[in-house]
Amino acid sequence: MSFSLAERDDTIIALATPQGVGAIAVIRISGKDAIRLCNDVFFGKNLEEQLSHTIHLGTIRDGEKIIDEVLVSLFKAPTSFTKENVVEISTHGSFYIVNQVLKLFVRKGVRLARPGEFTQRAFLNGQFDLAQAEAVADLIHSDSESSHQAALHQMRGGFSSEIQELRSQLIHFASMIELELDFSEEDVEFANREALRNLVERILRLVEELILSFDLGNVIKNGVPTVIAGKPNAGKSTLLNALLKEEKAIVSEIAGTTRDYIEDELSLGGVIFRFIDTAGLRETTDTIEAIGVSRTQEKMRTASLILYLFDLSNSDLEEINGDIAQLETLGVPFLKVGNKLDAADEQLVRDLRKAHPDMLFISAGKKENLEGLTARILELVNLDKFRTGNTIITNVRHYDSLTKTRESLLEVLTGLDQLVTHDFLAMDIRRALHYLGEITGEVTTDDLLATIFSKFCIGK
Amino acid sequence: MSFSLAERDDTIIALATPQGVGAIAVIRISGKDAIRLCNDVFFGKNLEEQLSHTIHLGTIRDGEKIIDEVLVSLFKAPTSFTKENVVEISTHGSFYIVNQVLKLFVRKGVRLARPGEFTQRAFLNGQFDLAQAEAVADLIHSDSESSHQAALHQMRGGFSSEIQELRSQLIHFASMIELELDFSEEDVEFANREALRNLVERILRLVEELILSFDLGNVIKNGVPTVIAGKPNAGKSTLLNALLKEEKAIVSEIAGTTRDYIEDELSLGGVIFRFIDTAGLRETTDTIEAIGVSRTQEKMRTASLILYLFDLSNSDLEEINGDIAQLETLGVPFLKVGNKLDAADEQLVRDLRKAHPDMLFISAGKKENLEGLTARILELVNLDKFRTGNTIITNVRHYDSLTKTRESLLEVLTGLDQLVTHDFLAMDIRRALHYLGEITGEVTTDDLLATIFSKFCIGK
Repeated sequence: MSFSLAERDDTIIALATPQGVGAIAVIRISGKDAIRLCNDVFFGKNLEEQLSHTIHLGTIRDGEKIIDEVLVSLFKAPTSFTKENVVEISTHGSFYIVNQVLKLFVRKGVRLARPGEFTQRAFLNGQFDLAQAEAVADLIHSDSESSHQAALHQMRGGFSSEIQELRSQLIHFASMIELELDFSEEDVEFANREALRNLVERILRLVEELILSFDLGNVIKNGVPTVIAGKPNAGKSTLLNALLKEEKAIVSEIAGTTRDYIEDELSLGGVIFRFIDTAGLRETTDTIEAIGVSRTQEKMRTASLILYLFDLSNSDLEEINGDIAQLETLGVPFLKVGNKLDAADEQLVRDLRKAHPDMLFISAGKKENLEGLTARILELVNLDKFRTGNTIITNVRHYDSLTKTRESLLEVLTGLDQLVTHDFLAMDIRRALHYLGEITGEVTTDDLLATIFSKFCIGK
Repeated sequence: MSFSLAERDDTIIALATPQGVGAIAVIRISGKDAIRLCNDVFFGKNLEEQLSHTIHLGTIRDGEKIIDEVLVSLFKAPTSFTKENVVEISTHGSFYIVNQVLKLFVRKGVRLARPGEFTQRAFLNGQFDLAQAEAVADLIHSDSESSHQAALHQMRGGFSSEIQELRSQLIHFASMIELELDFSEEDVEFANREALRNLVERILRLVEELILSFDLGNVIKNGVPTVIAGKPNAGKSTLLNALLKEEKAIVSEIAGTTRDYIEDELSLGGVIFRFIDTAGLRETTDTIEAIGVSRTQEKMRTASLILYLFDLSNSDLEEINGDIAQLETLGVPFLKVGNKLDAADEQLVRDLRKAHPDMLFISAGKKENLEGLTARILELVNLDKFRTGNTIITNVRHYDSLTKTRESLLEVLTGLDQLVTHDFLAMDIRRALHYLGEITGEVTTDDLLATIFSKFCIGK
């Protein structure tokens, strides 16, 4: 699927709100004829004579037949989302009505919009760059505070400006080197090689920082992979259920906004924690002794966080020390959690507090100190990193382009070391520029655009 | 659940669009503080200084944190749906964002709206009467042209004005009779008994017409109960599948508006046909001989329409004549359909055309003459009745009130016949007025309102 330029002249239409029964549905029309065509079927005021950003009550009619009483919102080019004329028709939220309105406009020559086509037009008309357009989709699908903040930060341009700044500096050097090519007979150096090396190294540091942020971005998007482990009967599933139950209660607090409940995901302080193999956890017999078993070891190694439960009612200090020593060999951040505090031997607790000041004491069954546990979990994943509004890469496509940018920049450095000729240097810089440009859409192909926007929902 | 008057002063909030992922979501806030409270968290223009029916771009913030970039639509009292100040916030269509916005306003003292509470306020503030308010819900749930037109007609007041006209005429007589009560010592007659009888009889005819329309209204809302019958192998399921397939193709023609596909329902020319026991049809062995079996007979008797298929490739005239004779004893409208025309004996077809000029010839398997069949089906259900925009009762509650009105009016007539005293006559007239008033909401109770509006969706 690719978008030809001619199609950009079409006036397009789509349902912008989710399908289903609701009080209202909003149908969005964009294109130079949007207001004129809507005026043809709207009975109320003459829409063509109204100001932008105004709302009008009337009826949509198909010949003599009234389809619905509606509110029509007008947005005149270029002060709309797509920078084209846009009409939003707010109808009663019935499938039948929406369908009738869509059919009516299709009969009048309006084309049904493809997924993401409104956002694509906004991009093509310069409303925002490609990375910002992609953030719109991320924003819609964000389901936690951290993913929402990362997408919003990106949509508002945070990340793009950094990329564009890097790129414009590099363009300056590229043009200097190209200039040298023109004068290649004369062996002049317009581009100071030391200054170029400094710039490339500075850009490289920034690119690497962004690449590193992708791991965090991934965590933000998909959740922190977490394992709850411990000897049989240490209370692993009791703890998970207690945490999930609390979240469920919060989620359903707002009437009318219940959603599908994901058993293995837990949102703590705005961060999604994804429990690995949680189903298995219910009847697991994984113990610290069993870590030798590769499957279990693998599971724990791929985690970003291990909550390890000790059964305080049925352990001694030596045993716990041994377990902790083995846990430390895994190289994965882990939280030592003493469970069943209510049934614990008091001397053991005193000894543990001395030996392991960082151990947390809870009672999952009695729901004691779960807030303390939550606070410690959030500390461990270093939440601050994405609280500060830092630039974070969450998009695989951007990650790929940044990785390729890095490779090209390393080539440039190697070239400088080996004193390669202007043309090789220019080629490597041009490649780095290309990959950086891909991120913000300064360099695009039809295929690239089609791929990106086809992932959007219709109406966006 | 009942709505106290104090609660009408609350500012209320709800998601007005369906839940799910879409390009946008619309959150509706209504109440005297709606604009002021929204202005507190909106960054852009000062909303309190803007005109009604205008749209403003800005951000919704929770303290320092941006929740979303939004469009805010303003509707100032009394020129809004509820006749109160109304704000509609159009956010990106994410569950997370909607939830954050709802929570933010709840923290500011806005109350989550109950189902139908916006429409209830519109009713209580005189935007429309109760029957019209109920039509809003019907409109949202309408899924065929006829149910949509009936609901729209009702929402726009069609039916209410008729009821109100009847009622006001009756009120005139009631007041005359009440006046007689005041002068009861003097034995005067302000209300001409003959004129009263004429009026009551006229009202009675209208009420009965409305009551009769309920059957039709029911059909419009729930579909025409239809049975496809015929000997085994006559092509019953082939026909149903062919009809359903055609509809399915039409439904999915508009991209992005596919819906749950109801196997047993078929929309023909804007009317829903509901096939009884369609699942059973697939392996049915029901034949005209089996009609004696009470279950089958019952099924056919409850239908409003029977499509009876004759297998033209495997029947003779005498047999078909016998079947038709038996069908006629059922007293249900039926359509004689000669199927498998492509494999029929030509002489048989000629004979049938002569003997049964109303028989329709099709080939379900080859999809021949299905349009002809559709046209004949629509003729049989007398579509014109609800094409003319006549008043049609679709609501059980209205049906109940009309039935009770009729009873009271009959009591009035009996009273007139038996020359009962003023006070008895006045009582019966008052009762009739009460039931008529219930329909349009001139007479209501908290319980009645709660019952009606609790059936609405939230946000309406």
